[in-house]
Amino acid sequence: MSTNGTASASKQDLDPNQGGDANKKTYHKTATGEALKTANAHSEEKDLKLYGSCFCPFVHRVWISLEHRGLDYQYVEVDVYRKPKLLLDINPRGLVPALRHGDWGCYESTVLMEYLEDLNQGSPLLPKDPKLRASSRLWSDHINRHIVPAFYRYLQAQESGDQVKFATELREQISKLVDAADGAGPFFFGPDMTFVDVQIAPWIVRMGRVLKPYRGWPDPEPGSRWEKLVRAIENADPVKKTTSGEELYLDSYERYAENRPNTSQVRDAISYGGTMP
Amino acid sequence: MSTNGTASASKQDLDPNQGGDANKKTYHKTATGEALKTANAHSEEKDLKLYGSCFCPFVHRVWISLEHRGLDYQYVEVDVYRKPKLLLDINPRGLVPALRHGDWGCYESTVLMEYLEDLNQGSPLLPKDPKLRASSRLWSDHINRHIVPAFYRYLQAQESGDQVKFATELREQISKLVDAADGAGPFFFGPDMTFVDVQIAPWIVRMGRVLKPYRGWPDPEPGSRWEKLVRAIENADPVKKTTSGEELYLDSYERYAENRPNTSQVRDAISYGGTMP
Repeated sequence: MSTNGTASASKQDLDPNQGGDANKKTYHKTATGEALKTANAHSEEKDLKLYGSCFCPFVHRVWISLEHRGLDYQYVEVDVYRKPKLLLDINPRGLVPALRHGDWGCYESTVLMEYLEDLNQGSPLLPKDPKLRASSRLWSDHINRHIVPAFYRYLQAQESGDQVKFATELREQISKLVDAADGAGPFFFGPDMTFVDVQIAPWIVRMGRVLKPYRGWPDPEPGSRWEKLVRAIENADPVKKTTSGEELYLDSYERYAENRPNTSQVRDAISYGGTMP
Repeated sequence: MSTNGTASASKQDLDPNQGGDANKKTYHKTATGEALKTANAHSEEKDLKLYGSCFCPFVHRVWISLEHRGLDYQYVEVDVYRKPKLLLDINPRGLVPALRHGDWGCYESTVLMEYLEDLNQGSPLLPKDPKLRASSRLWSDHINRHIVPAFYRYLQAQESGDQVKFATELREQISKLVDAADGAGPFFFGPDMTFVDVQIAPWIVRMGRVLKPYRGWPDPEPGSRWEKLVRAIENADPVKKTTSGEELYLDSYERYAENRPNTSQVRDAISYGGTMP
C-alpha cells in the first residue's frame, strides 16, 4: 500500500498494489459485516477521530481499543488515494491509523493505544501494577518485533521450503507468547482482555481468514492454551464489532499471498505500525 | 556479542566477536572514567538492580534514567561469559539491560524506562500531558526504528558507496527528529532533559566517539539546532556520570567498524533493545 500522502493520484499511481493487473483482487474501501455497522454508528462528527482503513490490522488495534473503552469517537474510513486534509495535517504521508483529538493528532498504533490509556477515560487496557504494565509492554514488543514480521514473511513466501521455514518461525514466536501467558486465561493476563490481547487480536483474526486459506495455517490444537486465547479474542465484543466479513480479508491480502510487485517492500518496511494490511 | 545466556563458555565460544583474532580490540569489561566512579558508588547490594555492560548503549539509556531520577539502585556489570544467575532468572538468554526489582525482573531498554516512569519515584522523564507523552513515544519509536539501525548500517559499511548511502540515511533520520524538536530547546521538548533525549543520548555519545574516528562523521554544524541538542545531552549530568572514557568506545566498536565475522547478524537483529553495543 502506498505510504505517500498524495491527495490526488496520477494514472501510474492508481493502484500499485494490484501489480499492474486490474483484474486482480485488492483491498476493500469500505468495511463489511459487524465492522460496517460499527463504522456507521460512529460516522457522526466528533472531537476524537480515528482515521483508518478497514483492512489494516494496525488500525484494527486502535479501533478495538476505542470500542473496549467505550469512548465517544468518530470513525473515518480513508481512501488511500484521497487522503483528507485533516489526516495529512497529522502526518504529511497520511499514515493510518491516526488519531485526531481536537487540534492535535498522532499516529502509530502502539503509541495511540498508550495515548488512549493516558486519557484515563473508559475501561483501561493496561493493568495498574507497574510490573504488569512492564510485562504488557514487553510482550507487545515481542508481538511487534517477532510475530507480526513472521506473519508477513510467511504470507509472502512463494517457495514451499520458505513457507515451511516461516510457518515454523511464526509458530515458535507464538509459543513464546503463549508460554508467558497466564495459565488459566483465557486472555493473556487472565479473565479480562488487556493491552497484549488487543495488540495481537488483528493478526489472530487474519490467521483464520488469510493464513488459513492462502497457506494452510492450521486451526489451534483443540484444548491448547493457544486455542483458548484465540477463542477468547475472537469472541470478545470489541473484536467482533470491528471485524469485517471474511471476504474482505481474503481479497485485501491476495496481493501479499501472490507476492505481487510492490508488496515485498512492505514486508521489509514492517517492524510495527504503518499502514499495510 | 553473544546473546546466549551460557554461564560457562566453551573454548570455541570464548570470543566470537573477535572474529577469531585474539590480537584485535574488543569490548571492555569494566567502565572507565566518570562511569566507573558511578558504578563504584552504586556497587552496594540494593533491591533495585541494573544488570548491564559498560559499552552497551541500550544499558546506557536505563543507567541515565536511574541517575536522572536519583533512585537508590545497584549497578551490576555483567561479564557476558559468566552471567549471574539472578540475571538468567529474568531471561534465560541473560539479555542486558535487565532490571531486577526484588523478586521480579524485566528487560528491553524502552520497557524498563517506562517501568521506572510508572514507579513514580524521583524526577520523571515523561511529561504529564497525554499529548506530549504520545509525542515522546512517537519520537522514541523513530529513534528505535530509524536512527539506531541507520547508525549500525553506517558503522558496518565497508564500501565507500555504502558508507555515503548510510551516512545520508542517518542524517535524514536525524533531521526528522530535529525538525520535530522544540525550536528553542536545547533539549527535545525544551529546557529539560526528557524521555526522547535519553532514548537518543547513548548514540549521540557514540557518534562523536565511534562514528567520527571510524567513519569521519562530522561534528554538528555550529549554530544548528542539532548542535544545541548534542551539546545539551553531552553536558547533562546523568549522561556525563554514565559515560566512560573515549578509548572504551573506540575499542568496543572496532569489530563493528571492521565488520568482523559475527557482527552483521547483530545489525540484522537490531530494531531496538538487545545487548549489542
